[in-house]
Amino acid sequence: MQSVPHLTTAQIGPMLMVESHLQEHLADIESWFRNQWRSIKEPFYASVDIRNAGFKIAPVDTNLFPAGFNNLNPAFEALCIQAVQLAIERMNTRIDRILIIPENHTRNLFYMESLGVLKEIIEKAGFEVRLGSMFPDLTEPKEATLESGRSLLLEPLLKEGNRIGVDGFIPELVILNNDLSSGRPALLEGLDQRLTPPLNMGWSNRLKSMHFGQYKMVAEEFAKHIDLDPWLIDPLFRNCGEIDFMKREGETCLSRNVTALLENIQKKYDEYSIKSEPYVMVKADAGTYGMGIMTVKSPDEISVLNRKQRTRMATVKEGQKVTKVLIQEGVYTHETWGEPPAVAEPVVYLIGHSVVGGFYRVHSARGVNENLNSPGMRFEPLAFEDCCISPEKSLSPDAHPNRFYAYGVIARLAMLAAAREMAA
Amino acid sequence: MQSVPHLTTAQIGPMLMVESHLQEHLADIESWFRNQWRSIKEPFYASVDIRNAGFKIAPVDTNLFPAGFNNLNPAFEALCIQAVQLAIERMNTRIDRILIIPENHTRNLFYMESLGVLKEIIEKAGFEVRLGSMFPDLTEPKEATLESGRSLLLEPLLKEGNRIGVDGFIPELVILNNDLSSGRPALLEGLDQRLTPPLNMGWSNRLKSMHFGQYKMVAEEFAKHIDLDPWLIDPLFRNCGEIDFMKREGETCLSRNVTALLENIQKKYDEYSIKSEPYVMVKADAGTYGMGIMTVKSPDEISVLNRKQRTRMATVKEGQKVTKVLIQEGVYTHETWGEPPAVAEPVVYLIGHSVVGGFYRVHSARGVNENLNSPGMRFEPLAFEDCCISPEKSLSPDAHPNRFYAYGVIARLAMLAAAREMAA
Repeated sequence: MQSVPHLTTAQIGPMLMVESHLQEHLADIESWFRNQWRSIKEPFYASVDIRNAGFKIAPVDTNLFPAGFNNLNPAFEALCIQAVQLAIERMNTRIDRILIIPENHTRNLFYMESLGVLKEIIEKAGFEVRLGSMFPDLTEPKEATLESGRSLLLEPLLKEGNRIGVDGFIPELVILNNDLSSGRPALLEGLDQRLTPPLNMGWSNRLKSMHFGQYKMVAEEFAKHIDLDPWLIDPLFRNCGEIDFMKREGETCLSRNVTALLENIQKKYDEYSIKSEPYVMVKADAGTYGMGIMTVKSPDEISVLNRKQRTRMATVKEGQKVTKVLIQEGVYTHETWGEPPAVAEPVVYLIGHSVVGGFYRVHSARGVNENLNSPGMRFEPLAFEDCCISPEKSLSPDAHPNRFYAYGVIARLAMLAAAREMAA
Repeated sequence: MQSVPHLTTAQIGPMLMVESHLQEHLADIESWFRNQWRSIKEPFYASVDIRNAGFKIAPVDTNLFPAGFNNLNPAFEALCIQAVQLAIERMNTRIDRILIIPENHTRNLFYMESLGVLKEIIEKAGFEVRLGSMFPDLTEPKEATLESGRSLLLEPLLKEGNRIGVDGFIPELVILNNDLSSGRPALLEGLDQRLTPPLNMGWSNRLKSMHFGQYKMVAEEFAKHIDLDPWLIDPLFRNCGEIDFMKREGETCLSRNVTALLENIQKKYDEYSIKSEPYVMVKADAGTYGMGIMTVKSPDEISVLNRKQRTRMATVKEGQKVTKVLIQEGVYTHETWGEPPAVAEPVVYLIGHSVVGGFYRVHSARGVNENLNSPGMRFEPLAFEDCCISPEKSLSPDAHPNRFYAYGVIARLAMLAAAREMAA
């Protein structure tokens, strides 16, 4: 079996334009990024969901509390370790002890394996690492033995004055691996310690539309620098505030924006002679885990949503109500893997501003325009065989190093957008 | 065939003490290094020759103008690229164009391959790179095609005002890959551009005794921090000024120091119940390329040197006369590879303060106490299968990741000594 998904599309259009353009502008691109990172601090890590339509490569979600570290290629462990060292060197302060605050769903064994790998990478980078849990039922340390043979000690989070830690351990740095879907915990307010990503980047504060607003500006600046149409790396979007799916409030706004967005996409498709049918994704503006998401090809679909569909859209993780939605250009996934072909969606990982690889979500039962990160949806992870760090001049634009380099560039643009969100 | 040399010794002594001690103190060690690098700038790169006697691991040479990049494991290319990006980020200034000044011996195809790999790594890190040669006979650009298929363009170095470059290319950073054995070139004096390593680190200025003096202090501070006898990581040494091998001047000083050093080594051997016979290396204090080096087991050997041996000691690279010598504790090499066993000497590479792997010099015709880097001596390079970045807690001290981690630590101590030489 091939080890990298196949990029296949029947489109007549500017195929591989992004890859070949990026491949040719390596020095300009890296120079631009270097300059950006000289003046802005990035969050500690991120994973970026990317879609490659052949004519267009764009991020569709940027997760600042990434899980899935267990899906990365073990061959790039040293790269991860070096990236952790660089990210912490960039914090410009003495850090030896690090506390990770994990999610509360400790029964999710996939999550626990990811946490185990994350802890191991940071330990191997030469730090003392402990896990401090906010889970209210955890009143004493609890050892979990994982399928991989890893053993993890979860300890109850303690607060002493303005500093948090676990028993006998007050860290200089706290890394959040909990997306704060259920709100900003009082325990974490007003800390004297460095906390990354900061509280206001949790899903209780953050809106996808804020991120994609920043991304739009980042993509425009970047595209101008290398003389590229920004649309080729940026999904169009609009947003609606004050939607109530259950009460059917805000539907007019939604329909109007869906119509406008579909028209704008069609214009770009016409410009590039792309024969696909435009579609949009309607997503909860706050929240993650692929909940509260639907694919829409016509505004008429909004008014005929049935009760089950409305319920599915109305709440996201931890029962948070959806009141704002993001309407985002749908980007077709034209990467497939295996036989019969299964749709494959790349996820790129960054530690600090360094790309450290990624993996594909491979799901055979889904279509090219559906979301592959849905609740209950099982995917097969396929680790990238390349770390996305540099293109290979001598090879074709679709050669794996070049495709992965393009993914690394897009992911770094998303990270830069997140850094600007954080600074804003 | 095994892919990593075998560490074998008949010694009764504190075997693997260094490896196991370093393995246990990962967090302390990395914390110590982090703190050091926060307050001092390192040269751009280095290769460090290391010897592992089983009871002791020590650097025997630190080269600040390394060749041999073609001997590194291609699997760690991404690590090298990331290390270049970090090293240049640490320079805290805008750098996009880089000029490399190579050695003049362009007919050495091994050297040219190394130069090709070095250039490629820096290009892939996102910089524009050109090669500016000081070779007087090079009056116009000359393309060289290498066995690997690489093609290298050597261009004559030009100076405009206080800036150097090649035709149409004025770089922000100049990387010296020429050890300046024949002196400080006037062309490179008083530049407005950043030059790394700086001129005074060339062999025309630098003395091995200065380096090992700094290394001794670094090793003492480090060893104190992790509670280790510094002798286990530091070769003892003494030096003599004003030696003339041909005129037999300075022999008394040499004999006296050889005697004293052999006695000091014997004391340490007795302390650790090591049954080996002490020996010392007598080396030209300035100079490289393994010229002007001899193994001495008794001061009597000095007075009976024949004419040929004296001539061999009297001059080093580019005909420079040897007037000062370093007398260094000989460290046995107890790593062997293959059948019949061939002696293997590790060489560790750093870019900035990051270790990026290394290789072994394997030579079957040499003994355990001889120098493996001699003129005319051909060795087989054996790339490290590990990048030396982190130990593996769960494995034995002699497991490959732990042995390589120890090498990485020793190499970083040598780099720190070089950084202090540079600052002094």
